[in-house]
Amino acid sequence: MHASIVTIGDEILIGQIIDTNSAYLAKELDKLGFQVDEILTISDKSEEIKKALANCVGKRDLVILTGGLGPTKDDVTKKVFCEFFDDVLVENSKVLEHVTVLLESIFKKPISDINKQQALVPSTSTVLFNTVGTAPGMLMQKENTTFVSFPGVPFEMKTIFEEELVPYIKKHFQGVFNVHKTIITYGIGESLLAEYLAEWEDRMPPNIKLAYLPSPGKVRLRLSTRGSDRELLLKEIDNQVSLIPEKVLPYIRAYEDIDFPEIVIKELQNRNKTISFAESCTGGRFAVLFNALPGSSAYFKGGIICYATESKVSILGVNPETIQQHSVVSEEVAMEMALQSRLKFKSDYAIATTGNAGPSKGDSDVEVGTVYIGIATPSRIFAKKYELGQPREKVINSAIAKGLELIYNEILKK
Amino acid sequence: MHASIVTIGDEILIGQIIDTNSAYLAKELDKLGFQVDEILTISDKSEEIKKALANCVGKRDLVILTGGLGPTKDDVTKKVFCEFFDDVLVENSKVLEHVTVLLESIFKKPISDINKQQALVPSTSTVLFNTVGTAPGMLMQKENTTFVSFPGVPFEMKTIFEEELVPYIKKHFQGVFNVHKTIITYGIGESLLAEYLAEWEDRMPPNIKLAYLPSPGKVRLRLSTRGSDRELLLKEIDNQVSLIPEKVLPYIRAYEDIDFPEIVIKELQNRNKTISFAESCTGGRFAVLFNALPGSSAYFKGGIICYATESKVSILGVNPETIQQHSVVSEEVAMEMALQSRLKFKSDYAIATTGNAGPSKGDSDVEVGTVYIGIATPSRIFAKKYELGQPREKVINSAIAKGLELIYNEILKK
Repeated sequence: MHASIVTIGDEILIGQIIDTNSAYLAKELDKLGFQVDEILTISDKSEEIKKALANCVGKRDLVILTGGLGPTKDDVTKKVFCEFFDDVLVENSKVLEHVTVLLESIFKKPISDINKQQALVPSTSTVLFNTVGTAPGMLMQKENTTFVSFPGVPFEMKTIFEEELVPYIKKHFQGVFNVHKTIITYGIGESLLAEYLAEWEDRMPPNIKLAYLPSPGKVRLRLSTRGSDRELLLKEIDNQVSLIPEKVLPYIRAYEDIDFPEIVIKELQNRNKTISFAESCTGGRFAVLFNALPGSSAYFKGGIICYATESKVSILGVNPETIQQHSVVSEEVAMEMALQSRLKFKSDYAIATTGNAGPSKGDSDVEVGTVYIGIATPSRIFAKKYELGQPREKVINSAIAKGLELIYNEILKK
Repeated sequence: MHASIVTIGDEILIGQIIDTNSAYLAKELDKLGFQVDEILTISDKSEEIKKALANCVGKRDLVILTGGLGPTKDDVTKKVFCEFFDDVLVENSKVLEHVTVLLESIFKKPISDINKQQALVPSTSTVLFNTVGTAPGMLMQKENTTFVSFPGVPFEMKTIFEEELVPYIKKHFQGVFNVHKTIITYGIGESLLAEYLAEWEDRMPPNIKLAYLPSPGKVRLRLSTRGSDRELLLKEIDNQVSLIPEKVLPYIRAYEDIDFPEIVIKELQNRNKTISFAESCTGGRFAVLFNALPGSSAYFKGGIICYATESKVSILGVNPETIQQHSVVSEEVAMEMALQSRLKFKSDYAIATTGNAGPSKGDSDVEVGTVYIGIATPSRIFAKKYELGQPREKVINSAIAKGLELIYNEILKK
């Protein structure tokens, strides 16, 4: 079961937007057992689209196109479908009724001719109904290749995919499974990890594929396999994971593809503990990470973003003398911020940040890139100093990574 | 000047990561005058990579590949380069020295054989030095097509691109410019906008291309053109923009490609005004949006994230009787939260949110998706109720859009 994803849109080719639709489709097609061979972005020119369709005929089982279905002149996908499949556009009465009801309820006036065109579809296409927008999806076939066209607006594309295409796929395609297992390591470089794993990797069964995914401070290991017996595949992968050499184990933080905040959250949940934040240079990003998931009120108590020195005193309750004596970017202030956050929010743990993310100097004389991270726990308070360089984005991201590392180690101690 | 971007990596084909490298490269190549014809993601199999290279020879001026350059066995790009260009790998002494110094300073021990392999490059390649990592970039040529290979780690790729490839491009490619102008409209649907603009669009010179980029609540219009006389292109685009029919003007919020938070920030800056936030269900996201840019301390005063009802009283200073009488998710509480934020942070404006983003009910009995947004300004305080549906992510994003709309209108009044 081979698939291709084709995105139509000049906005991606000039870098105006990031293509998140393809990532969504790739993940969902993988879950459904497809092997996605390529993801392609092309211009909204008829010839380019036709060439892409022609390249896939007979070679892929499923081709999903997104984009180019709007009511405006720059959207050409439907015209191209008609030429490629030698078909003509006809009005679909169900779609027309839906578009009419939807738009007249919003705009309180009869719909325009431009909008009526949304109900035109190739005569031999299967309409994939769009309950949340006006442009329907379409499904057509040629030489054993199924072509599907979706609108490019992400939530419309996702809705049609889930409501219409997934049931179709489950009925018409079946039998192959992709199984992946991701292992998260921290604190070991890719090369050293590869050295430690060399023998293990050599002995791995040929149907299991190993990939290294490095990012700053972290390497993800992914084991992948595909086949028809899902249970057997899972067992084979688990067996391989159980053979990982002992010296690698201390670096493993999770046996699933989750980010560090989620790893910390799991440890808080396991212990029924709570956390709060007093953030200066990280500006609320710790808080956002810790309340992103449903149910976060069980472990996330809140946060204070005290950018200005004044609010560190008036709202958070830092002693102004501490600031005067040690400066606002200092170990002492970071410790007091963490303590005050823990007390004010009545949380078990607290993380505080004070520093200068740059590019220019702020309320303090410290160098750009200097950040103090304060940690308060039920048993102690401390702070550490970091020089995180530049640019601003890197300073903020590194400060978050360091803070997570510090609090993770404290939580594990209990 | 035609270009292709090829990303090598199974992690993108299975949807494990979003391809942000291509968006970066597309934007930068566009700035340098290239027309990016396609962005392609393929598997790290030798045949696939070779096929992609072969498809571009003679057809593109520049092809950039990212990924597949690490020290581990799943990285095959260099081997493929040698086969495709009929070349052999040789050790580059400058790269070896750099890798040795870099890794020995981190790990305090002699580097391994695996790491030494990072210094191997095809003998006829031009090395693009990687000052921030171990895998160098490489540049090779075949039939007037320049092929460049970069490591996939984003900050390494960006560094090599800026430090090594941009100077190379400026020296060897030249003379063509892409000019884009993006106009942001809010509060008008794509179809109606297209109707209003139909005549204007028909009269547009053929060398200017118009695109509609719709997203919830907003449509971006992009005018694009390319040619050799940059000044003339800019003038032509500006002239076209000046001809936009009058009835569209009230919907235009910006004549550049910026997001709504930035539009609001500009209005604050123009008036020397400040803002603060008291966030419950939005969990700090307003604050993060308003302190993302350098220099934000001039207009961003801070925020309190009071998730639990208790902290709305103890930290923010909401009157507990208001909560008892009207419930914690109510117009009255939203107004008091906004007022308290404005007073505590001494800001000119404040936005407050209290609601239930779901999926389950919280401290209040209100329906999932109900959000009150409170606004405090120098002259008034008010709150509005919204029913934002589900899922959680949509509730939070819509609440932010509504809050920006409310505060924008208040700021403009002054």
